Amino acid sequence: MDVAVVGLGLIGGSLLRALATAGHELYGYDVDPATRATARTAAAQAPPGARWQVPGSLADTVRRADGRWADLVAVAVPLPAVGAVFDALARISYVGQVTDVTSVKAPVAELAAERLHSQGQALASFVGGHPMAGRETSGFGAADPTLFDGCAWVLCLEQQTPLTEWLGLAALLTSLGARVVPTTAAEHDEAVAAVSHVPHLLAAALAAGAAGNPLAATLAAGSFRDGTRVAAGNPALIAAMCGGNAGPLSTALDALLDNLAGARVALAEADPIAALARWLAPGCAARGGWPPRSGESAVLPAHREVLLRLGGVGGWVTSVAADLRTVTAVRPA
Amino acid sequence: MDVAVVGLGLIGGSLLRALATAGHELYGYDVDPATRATARTAAAQAPPGARWQVPGSLADTVRRADGRWADLVAVAVPLPAVGAVFDALARISYVGQVTDVTSVKAPVAELAAERLHSQGQALASFVGGHPMAGRETSGFGAADPTLFDGCAWVLCLEQQTPLTEWLGLAALLTSLGARVVPTTAAEHDEAVAAVSHVPHLLAAALAAGAAGNPLAATLAAGSFRDGTRVAAGNPALIAAMCGGNAGPLSTALDALLDNLAGARVALAEADPIAALARWLAPGCAARGGWPPRSGESAVLPAHREVLLRLGGVGGWVTSVAADLRTVTAVRPA
Repeated sequence: MDVAVVGLGLIGGSLLRALATAGHELYGYDVDPATRATARTAAAQAPPGARWQVPGSLADTVRRADGRWADLVAVAVPLPAVGAVFDALARISYVGQVTDVTSVKAPVAELAAERLHSQGQALASFVGGHPMAGRETSGFGAADPTLFDGCAWVLCLEQQTPLTEWLGLAALLTSLGARVVPTTAAEHDEAVAAVSHVPHLLAAALAAGAAGNPLAATLAAGSFRDGTRVAAGNPALIAAMCGGNAGPLSTALDALLDNLAGARVALAEADPIAALARWLAPGCAARGGWPPRSGESAVLPAHREVLLRLGGVGGWVTSVAADLRTVTAVRPA
Repeated sequence: MDVAVVGLGLIGGSLLRALATAGHELYGYDVDPATRATARTAAAQAPPGARWQVPGSLADTVRRADGRWADLVAVAVPLPAVGAVFDALARISYVGQVTDVTSVKAPVAELAAERLHSQGQALASFVGGHPMAGRETSGFGAADPTLFDGCAWVLCLEQQTPLTEWLGLAALLTSLGARVVPTTAAEHDEAVAAVSHVPHLLAAALAAGAAGNPLAATLAAGSFRDGTRVAAGNPALIAAMCGGNAGPLSTALDALLDNLAGARVALAEADPIAALARWLAPGCAARGGWPPRSGESAVLPAHREVLLRLGGVGGWVTSVAADLRTVTAVRPA
C-alpha cells in the first residue's frame, strides 16, 4: 500500500516506521523543516526495504512524480492543525482515503465533512481513528515502530462510513498488532473523556499541589510519580487534546468532582476510616478488574451492527479476512 | 543493634529483612499466625548471619529469654492497630526506643504520649517515622530488603524529641540507604496529604469512572493505568491511611477541588484550548521540575533548628557522624 503520513510527531513517526517496516511504500511530511531533516536522516539509517521518503511539501507527499496518488493519507497533526491539512488535501483534489489519529473524533468528523469536498462533492473517504498509545515523550525522535503492538485503535464507524474502506483500514492496522475498536465518534469522545482526558487534568492539578512546597516535593513518592506522570508532557498538546473535547470532558469532570465530593463528606464523618472504606470500594474493585482480560476469539460477519455491538461491549477486531466478509474478534472475558 | 519489628506486612517485613541483611539482631512479630509462619520459613531460607527470629508473642519479640530488651521496637502495623501495640508495650513496661512507620504522624504522636507511660511516667522514648515507600502489593511475601534504598524516610523532630535518640535512629536508617527527612508531625501530615493521600483518592475516583463502561475500560491506556495504579491496593489500608489524616487531607482535597474548578471554567470558555493551556502551565512546570535533583552534600551541626530548616527546604540527612555531633546532608539543587 502507498501511504502518506502528514505530521511526524510521536504517533505519525511511529506509524511511518511501523508501516515501512511492514513493507508498505511510505511518504512522510511535517510542517517543521527540522523534523523533516531528522526523518530523512532516520530513513537513510533504516534497513533497505523499510525506508520512507520525506518530500519538501505536502502536495509532493500525497502525489507522486508520475501522477499517482497515495492510497491513504494518515493525518497525524494536533487537532488545531487538522482543518488546514484537510484544506490542503481538498486544494489538490485528493480523492483517496483519509484517516487521522487525533484524540477527539466528533470535531474531526465535522472538519472532514466541511473541508474534504469540492463544489459540493465529497472528495476523499474519511474514517476517523485514534490509537490509544500516548507517551509523555513527543516528537519524531521518540517514534517507535512497535508502539501500536497490542494497543487499542479506535476506528469510527458511522452510518455514512463506507464499510469497505473501514475494513481495509482495519486490516492495515491489525497487521501492525493494533486491536481495532469499532465505535462512533460520539461514544469515543465520551469514553476517552473519562479514561484519558480527565486523568490529564488530575495529573496537572496534583502536580500543581506540590509547587512551592519543597518538603512535599521531597516526600512525594510512587503515588505522586504515577498520578502526575502525564503532566510531564507538552502542555500545548494536552490543552489541544482536552480542550478539543470540551463538552464530553466537562461532563466527565463533573462526574468525577461529584464522586470526590463524596470523599470530602466521608472525611468529615465521625469515623472517617470506615466511611472512606465504603467510598473507596467501587474504585478499588474497578481497578482490580482492569485491564479487561481477553476472552476467546471468534469469527464474526463484517456487518456494521455486529461491529458496533462488539465495540460497545469492549471488544476489538484482531484481523480482517482478505475478502472483507468476516473479521476475527475478541471480547473481554 | 537488637531490633523488634511488630507487624510483618510490606513495610515491616522489608525493614526486618533490610536490618537483618545489615547484620543487626532481628525479632519479628505479626498478630496473624499464618504471617508468622511465612516469616519463619523465609528466615530459615535467608543466608546465615542475615536471619531473624519470629517468636509466638509480642512480649517474647521485645524481651529476650535472658531478660534483655530490644534496643528498638519498630511498630509497623496499620494506624487503627497502633494504640493496642503501644498498650502492650506499656503493659510489659518496655523502656527502650520506639518508632513507627505509619503514614500519619500527629495521631501516632498523640497515641504515644497517651499510651507509652506507666503511673504518669513516660516509659519508652518515641520518634515517629514514615518511609515514603508504598507499593500496590502488600504482605510479607512482597517484602524487599532494598525497598528503602534512596527512599525519603521522615523522622519527626518535635520540641520534646530527645535529639540523641533521633540521631541514633537516623544513623540506623541512613545505613539502609534511606534519605532521612527531619520535620514535625504537623508539617509531615500536611505534606503527605497533598502528595500521597490526595493521589489515592484521585486514583479511586478515576477508576470508578470506568466502572460499568466496557468501551471505556478497553480504551483506557497509559494515563488511566498510571493514574489509577494505587487504587489496586488494599482499600482497608488506603482508608486507614487517608482517614487517619482526615483534617489535613480535607484541606488538601479542598485545594485540589478548587484548582479543578478552574479547569471546569476553562472548558466552558470560548477558546477552551487556550484557556486550558493557561490552567495547565503551573502543574506541567511543577512536574517538569520533579523529582528534585540532589544538590551538593554538606556537613551540618546536628542541632534541632538546623535539621528542621534542612527538612523545610526539602533536604535530607544521608549519614550521621559516629559521635552524633554532625550529619551529612543534601539539599535539592
